[in-house]
Amino acid sequence: MINIICVGKIKENYLKDGINDYQKRISKYHKINIIELPDNDIINEGNEIIKHLNKKDYIIVLDITGNELSSVELADKLDKTFIINSNITFIIGGSNGIRDDIKELANYRLSFSKLTYPHGLFRLILLEQIYRSFKILNNETYHK
Amino acid sequence: MINIICVGKIKENYLKDGINDYQKRISKYHKINIIELPDNDIINEGNEIIKHLNKKDYIIVLDITGNELSSVELADKLDKTFIINSNITFIIGGSNGIRDDIKELANYRLSFSKLTYPHGLFRLILLEQIYRSFKILNNETYHK
Repeated sequence: MINIICVGKIKENYLKDGINDYQKRISKYHKINIIELPDNDIINEGNEIIKHLNKKDYIIVLDITGNELSSVELADKLDKTFIINSNITFIIGGSNGIRDDIKELANYRLSFSKLTYPHGLFRLILLEQIYRSFKILNNETYHK
Repeated sequence: MINIICVGKIKENYLKDGINDYQKRISKYHKINIIELPDNDIINEGNEIIKHLNKKDYIIVLDITGNELSSVELADKLDKTFIINSNITFIIGGSNGIRDDIKELANYRLSFSKLTYPHGLFRLILLEQIYRSFKILNNETYHK
């Protein structure tokens, strides 16, 4: 199972449509579950995130100061992680960011960019890269 | 004027909606013009791109191996560039990439990520960052 824990509602319909599209596409390769938590202050957002974490899961926190990977390296990382873990949980913070203790308990800190993105657009970008990973791992072409 | 030269049609309605949304938002701060060129082979795509370049413009090519900037650094780069240039032209390649000679004639090579994105999603991401730059330069809050 791939879990995506994210904070904050998506307001824009175009982002909802894009996220639904990639969620459907990914589900042909792997079970995927999006857990959307309500906006709050960073402390309470963290408490809610922690309630949804399972120590057996491999936890990847999205953090601007984390490790940057190419799409091929990300696909390889997911592939290797699934050899010994049945679940990968991604955490995307809201506009307040993510509590440091959650960054520290994560197994991996991943950065997509030095740029700051809106959290809703970022959710779409993450889903697209997870989908791309499965296309890469299955040697399937993916041009669009 | 900000020009965005890009290769390939956008098929997904959700991307069209998002791109239109940010294009409208940016136009409150600066004139923006999107030039969409048809898909072709990389040679002919390059020929079409060159027809739309003006030597007086500051040309920024989006290239995965280019310089990575933070959102604040990008805003600062655009601000400083507009002091001595009236036009900035961004070039986004299609699924074939961009010809090396065009990368070489550009004034700046900019990378948003080590990850490979679909060109349509990338157009949305670029527009969001240009909009974010104007919000940063005008000291306006921008949470979403």
